[in-house]
Amino acid sequence: MTPLSSLGEFGLIRRLTAGLEPQNASTLKGPGDDCAVLSYGGRQLLLTTDLLLEGVHFDLVYTPLKHLGYKAAAVNFSDIYACGGTPRQLTVSIAVDRRISVESLDEFYAGLRLACQRYGCDLVGGDTSSSLTGFAISVTCVGEAPEDGPVTRSGAKDTDLVCVSGNLGAAYLGLQLLEREKKVFAGAKPDDETAAQPDFSGHEYLLERFLKPEPRRDIVEALAKAGIRPTSMIDVCDGLSSELLHLCRESHVGCRIFEERIPLDYQTALCAEEFNLNVTTCALDGGEDYELLFTVPLAQHEAVAALDDVHVIGHITRPELGPVLVLRGGAEEVEIKAQGWVAEKATAPDGAPAAN
Amino acid sequence: MTPLSSLGEFGLIRRLTAGLEPQNASTLKGPGDDCAVLSYGGRQLLLTTDLLLEGVHFDLVYTPLKHLGYKAAAVNFSDIYACGGTPRQLTVSIAVDRRISVESLDEFYAGLRLACQRYGCDLVGGDTSSSLTGFAISVTCVGEAPEDGPVTRSGAKDTDLVCVSGNLGAAYLGLQLLEREKKVFAGAKPDDETAAQPDFSGHEYLLERFLKPEPRRDIVEALAKAGIRPTSMIDVCDGLSSELLHLCRESHVGCRIFEERIPLDYQTALCAEEFNLNVTTCALDGGEDYELLFTVPLAQHEAVAALDDVHVIGHITRPELGPVLVLRGGAEEVEIKAQGWVAEKATAPDGAPAAN
Repeated sequence: MTPLSSLGEFGLIRRLTAGLEPQNASTLKGPGDDCAVLSYGGRQLLLTTDLLLEGVHFDLVYTPLKHLGYKAAAVNFSDIYACGGTPRQLTVSIAVDRRISVESLDEFYAGLRLACQRYGCDLVGGDTSSSLTGFAISVTCVGEAPEDGPVTRSGAKDTDLVCVSGNLGAAYLGLQLLEREKKVFAGAKPDDETAAQPDFSGHEYLLERFLKPEPRRDIVEALAKAGIRPTSMIDVCDGLSSELLHLCRESHVGCRIFEERIPLDYQTALCAEEFNLNVTTCALDGGEDYELLFTVPLAQHEAVAALDDVHVIGHITRPELGPVLVLRGGAEEVEIKAQGWVAEKATAPDGAPAAN
Repeated sequence: MTPLSSLGEFGLIRRLTAGLEPQNASTLKGPGDDCAVLSYGGRQLLLTTDLLLEGVHFDLVYTPLKHLGYKAAAVNFSDIYACGGTPRQLTVSIAVDRRISVESLDEFYAGLRLACQRYGCDLVGGDTSSSLTGFAISVTCVGEAPEDGPVTRSGAKDTDLVCVSGNLGAAYLGLQLLEREKKVFAGAKPDDETAAQPDFSGHEYLLERFLKPEPRRDIVEALAKAGIRPTSMIDVCDGLSSELLHLCRESHVGCRIFEERIPLDYQTALCAEEFNLNVTTCALDGGEDYELLFTVPLAQHEAVAALDDVHVIGHITRPELGPVLVLRGGAEEVEIKAQGWVAEKATAPDGAPAAN
């Protein structure tokens, strides 16, 4: 028998979904992008789903249930925005064990409702069931594609500019902070109250980025307002490297990214130093930032440069040049790989929403 | 803190989804039926989702993965058929631990693909992730509602006939057989090969009903062909009692069901006797039959009686008469309750697709 580790997540998904031929005219696009694309009554719809498990995708030791509900919805909205769409309907199924009280679920639903209200999406169904093994959450979102069709991962062209919103690596460092305090807490004596109080002061932004990510509707709206249609787009859930590789593979192009242009928050840089981590590695491989990575034609350089919170980090190249990172200073270049990801996590595929 | 047991599954869902007001014109119906109902470009769409966990909803000791894949899709199709609709697109997310090989997932997907092919539905996406605690499956199905709108749970009227397709209780007894053999197997000495061989001969039908249910597309099609639009409909996943109570509550009516008219297969009756179980109780409370329970106007009695594999088991009454079962012989009547369900299972909500 072949262990799953031999394929990795994306290889596994490609194997399992190989050769699927749609039987219905309403199916425009199956697995392989942020969302599936459906067509009904002349409208194009987006469909995306996520399965989140306690102990794998979240840790209830440091994740407030309200934040968890918010994030469970937000990461699905992010997939819809990554196609340039608008989230409209959400279903949420949960499985809970006996530790969970009614009040805890109220909190979880308060978070879900808040995210739905903020992003204009309706919570339309789901189910609850029991679990023997912790909290499990399944979320599905239906969205409306833009009138000129969904933005995909496959439209990037040679010379296009590569852009990313916000900043990267913050969520990963937020997670490191929480994991560190969890260990400290676990090692504290039960009667030592001072030792058990985590001190997150100065790091609030990083925690917020990890615990309560905001999907970038504002960027989708700003692009539309500026009349810019990205040639390709993806949300940054697994880290910049992994998403760049998706865009390059699906678009059959290479890219040239400049390390010094990768946007970083000051807190991210400080905290990386504290952990003795290379901050660029945090941005490249950290994941869970839920920023938007997209490409636009070179001719739109001025328009895109004028947008708030959007950063041009490089450009698309011919496929034979591959995905390249130009290191700080410009003297050295390295191939972009999904560093650490395949090696560390391929023993079991990771929880990132890969197929869509 | 309030334990979940104090509310029961349906009470919990009502609490969590109370007061949800749709923000989008494309949301026609939220939680509370087999499917949510969406409207896009003049078409009404159905959306349903299920979360299935190892150890709660299925047992890999006796569930072949191909059957599991088939059933995971089939039970979602059943929700779409329960609204009179047609399944079109399916997403499937799975979380797996290290026990699962690539070949096992191939089997699971072979079952999924077979069900999709047979029922004309496209597998359009999903994701894979790791699990620390067994196999988890999340399935979402998008379907098309009939042109005159989805059949709901809330349209049953006084004097309507209550009908059910196929026969009931078979899946429950299939499960009992599998559970019994699992115990025998667990108790057998490792070197006693004869003791470890389960003997299911004569019971194949019951096992098939549990392991590989077929959703009743044929009934939906036969009703349409006969020009019969049910006034209400639901699929039998939790047992006849539970579904009758849903129809009565949502339609604000009572019902009178005749025990002697509840359709039972010969194998079901034999097997119930073998287990010293009341076969009517198996039909009322067993669940997982995935037959269709529906109501039609009294005037369509002849038309519905002419349909293959459809059985009139009673009629709808005024709400103050409540849901009533007329026992065999007709001398005695009892109130229909979701027997055993609330008492036995309310400590943790059950896995049935309740909200939709």
